[in-house]
Amino acid sequence: MNTLIFQSDFGIGDGAVSAMYGVANSVCPDLHIYDLTHDITPYDIWQASYRLVQTVNYWRQGTVFVSVVDPGVGSDRLSIVAKTKNGQYIVTPDNGTLTHVKLRLGIEEVRIIDETINRLADSDESYTFYGRDVYAYTGARLAAGVISFEEVGPLYDVEKIVELPTQKPVLDDTSVSGIIDILDVRFGSLWTNIPKTLFKKLNVSFGDRLEVTISNGRRILFKNTMIYAKLFADVYVGEALVYVNSLDHMAVAINQGSFARAYNIGTGTSWQITLKKESK
Amino acid sequence: MNTLIFQSDFGIGDGAVSAMYGVANSVCPDLHIYDLTHDITPYDIWQASYRLVQTVNYWRQGTVFVSVVDPGVGSDRLSIVAKTKNGQYIVTPDNGTLTHVKLRLGIEEVRIIDETINRLADSDESYTFYGRDVYAYTGARLAAGVISFEEVGPLYDVEKIVELPTQKPVLDDTSVSGIIDILDVRFGSLWTNIPKTLFKKLNVSFGDRLEVTISNGRRILFKNTMIYAKLFADVYVGEALVYVNSLDHMAVAINQGSFARAYNIGTGTSWQITLKKESK
Amino acid sequence: MNTLIFQSDFGIGDGAVSAMYGVANSVCPDLHIYDLTHDITPYDIWQASYRLVQTVNYWRQGTVFVSVVDPGVGSDRLSIVAKTKNGQYIVTPDNGTLTHVKLRLGIEEVRIIDETINRLADSDESYTFYGRDVYAYTGARLAAGVISFEEVGPLYDVEKIVELPTQKPVLDDTSVSGIIDILDVRFGSLWTNIPKTLFKKLNVSFGDRLEVTISNGRRILFKNTMIYAKLFADVYVGEALVYVNSLDHMAVAINQGSFARAYNIGTGTSWQITLKKESK
Repeated sequence: MNTLIFQSDFGIGDGAVSAMYGVANSVCPDLHIYDLTHDITPYDIWQASYRLVQTVNYWRQGTVFVSVVDPGVGSDRLSIVAKTKNGQYIVTPDNGTLTHVKLRLGIEEVRIIDETINRLADSDESYTFYGRDVYAYTGARLAAGVISFEEVGPLYDVEKIVELPTQKPVLDDTSVSGIIDILDVRFGSLWTNIPKTLFKKLNVSFGDRLEVTISNGRRILFKNTMIYAKLFADVYVGEALVYVNSLDHMAVAINQGSFARAYNIGTGTSWQITLKKESK
Repeated sequence: MNTLIFQSDFGIGDGAVSAMYGVANSVCPDLHIYDLTHDITPYDIWQASYRLVQTVNYWRQGTVFVSVVDPGVGSDRLSIVAKTKNGQYIVTPDNGTLTHVKLRLGIEEVRIIDETINRLADSDESYTFYGRDVYAYTGARLAAGVISFEEVGPLYDVEKIVELPTQKPVLDDTSVSGIIDILDVRFGSLWTNIPKTLFKKLNVSFGDRLEVTISNGRRILFKNTMIYAKLFADVYVGEALVYVNSLDHMAVAINQGSFARAYNIGTGTSWQITLKKESK
Repeated sequence: MNTLIFQSDFGIGDGAVSAMYGVANSVCPDLHIYDLTHDITPYDIWQASYRLVQTVNYWRQGTVFVSVVDPGVGSDRLSIVAKTKNGQYIVTPDNGTLTHVKLRLGIEEVRIIDETINRLADSDESYTFYGRDVYAYTGARLAAGVISFEEVGPLYDVEKIVELPTQKPVLDDTSVSGIIDILDVRFGSLWTNIPKTLFKKLNVSFGDRLEVTISNGRRILFKNTMIYAKLFADVYVGEALVYVNSLDHMAVAINQGSFARAYNIGTGTSWQITLKKESK
């Protein structure tokens, strides 16, 4: 018996999430069902993609994720199930939701959901709630072992799935540059796409100062130096720091404050960040 | 082993919901416990009633719902358990929470909770948290099979349960009228009480235009034409549409926008909507 | 198989809570995992402490709580597991989170988490997410019976754990005084630290009037009389009342209104409240 995890942009203020849970529980009442989050900003596929890469690998092989951020619901976008390199499954519209997982964790195989089989009974006149009628139903059946991965539907070329535009971080002699991938929402920290491994090539030590520049197009929103710290507790309350986040990427924060709110920083490929080694 | 579902207006920001879960888990640690929502606007019985009708039938027979929106907590309003026509149970104060379920799904039998038996031990000096002391406790015992439905307490006449005032949708030659039942909160769509089956008697086809009028008393808040579309993806982003919602009732939305916020639309029996066939 | 309960100040808008769930589920997929709340105000240890005392005793013996409000994450604050007098466990940084539980429920034994054993594999270069790498992992192993309480690590003196400053309520001839411990967030009621048992020494009966004074330092924010009521339903809608809350402490509310918002009342040791018997 595997576990089923839901993510969506539905919020938890109405009955939509519970209807999906009900469909899954009806497939198999012994399933353990949990949430990733339902607070994805409506239609924000990038966020959905990031939240998956943030969590998928902390769940065991065989865990099934159902991610429903689906601005094109009912259109001709495909409905697919991806199997990650580590053996988790993700049920999702093929709209870019798999971008980060493909890039960082790897996808082994993708199958198109055959809706002639994998659709809640009597739901074929409902066109607006695929999350309930197709994705929750298919995800639950896969998690409960009612169907095998093969029975989801025909194979699809992993290289053909939709990917959102991304950027690779760049290293030069004294600096490394990347983008602000996402915010640590509650605490306002900036999480970049610069891996710790790349940053380490700068040979910076804990306690060294870095010059941090954050820009959006031509506009520079922040340029100042701060310490590269091992722990938040290594700097003063209210002081900024560069640190390695819980996904082994570089991040910027204010200890017990919100960096994002302090400097109005957003996320996405237009938000550039450079970490530059200070000359001593 | 059945499943237990909680709904309330408590929010999830404090310990109230977890205390109810704890009481249920203490009755039987193997119970699967899930939420409908705890974001019902405080004291809004209408919303609670609607969220039940939105979800109950997606859960299997025997599932027990505990709904605690209870402005008269501790007063002489009855505490009851209803059995729906499809065999789910709803534990609730008798204050109108069952209005939509009775109307649309049907209620087979109602029993009054006998609090001399069905009350958490040592809680009889607590008068303000029936959700924990009576409803969660009774719901969990019913779901776990510790008590049968008969052991809840004496039968009560289904016709006597409290119902909120509602209105029936009205069909004439070229139009159908009803009320705005509820919002699809996150996306701002308007969900009406007009069933698809009634609307279909107008003989409108996908792609036809309808004149939509929304009023509150004498005030008209919206009057314009829009397309009756099968899918959101059938209209432009930002364009309004009439569609069949996921509960097979008529709804109005803006594709990737919020209709409710755009025109300040509310819900309830004072919010009238008319869908009129355009003369060709 | 025991149950695992999470509390944090992470919110549920990103992937942090789900990553903790994943770690726990990986330890043992049969665990039942639930939330207390993740809406603790960031870094507010007092709130975390109160939410535990509000719920812990409604869960059965052996239930494991993981509470992660950890402004000093990664610093030299200890990571501990406390066993309450009633046999529940609380995994937490030793930063005051156990204040109310120690005071009201009692703590039997405390152990320091030995991180050389109780840490998620390959996480030892991650310094910012103890909730996932140490607390969720240890809590899940304890709940699942993979480790015993003894295997958490060495004993620690219960008297040495960090306690936040509190105040004892004071009784005199005609009044009882205390502090506003916490708000019933959604409904804006004030929950004091005055136990029902202490209040009862004033010999006040339901229906009697009390003079209620609320002050912060020298500033008096409220001074007026109100009824001591058994039920909210015993006063008018919109009327204030004193009542016994669901934790058997004295509380002040407006029936179907928000007392806290009406008078801008906050919480903590600086918020004093006095309930005075009216001379007849």
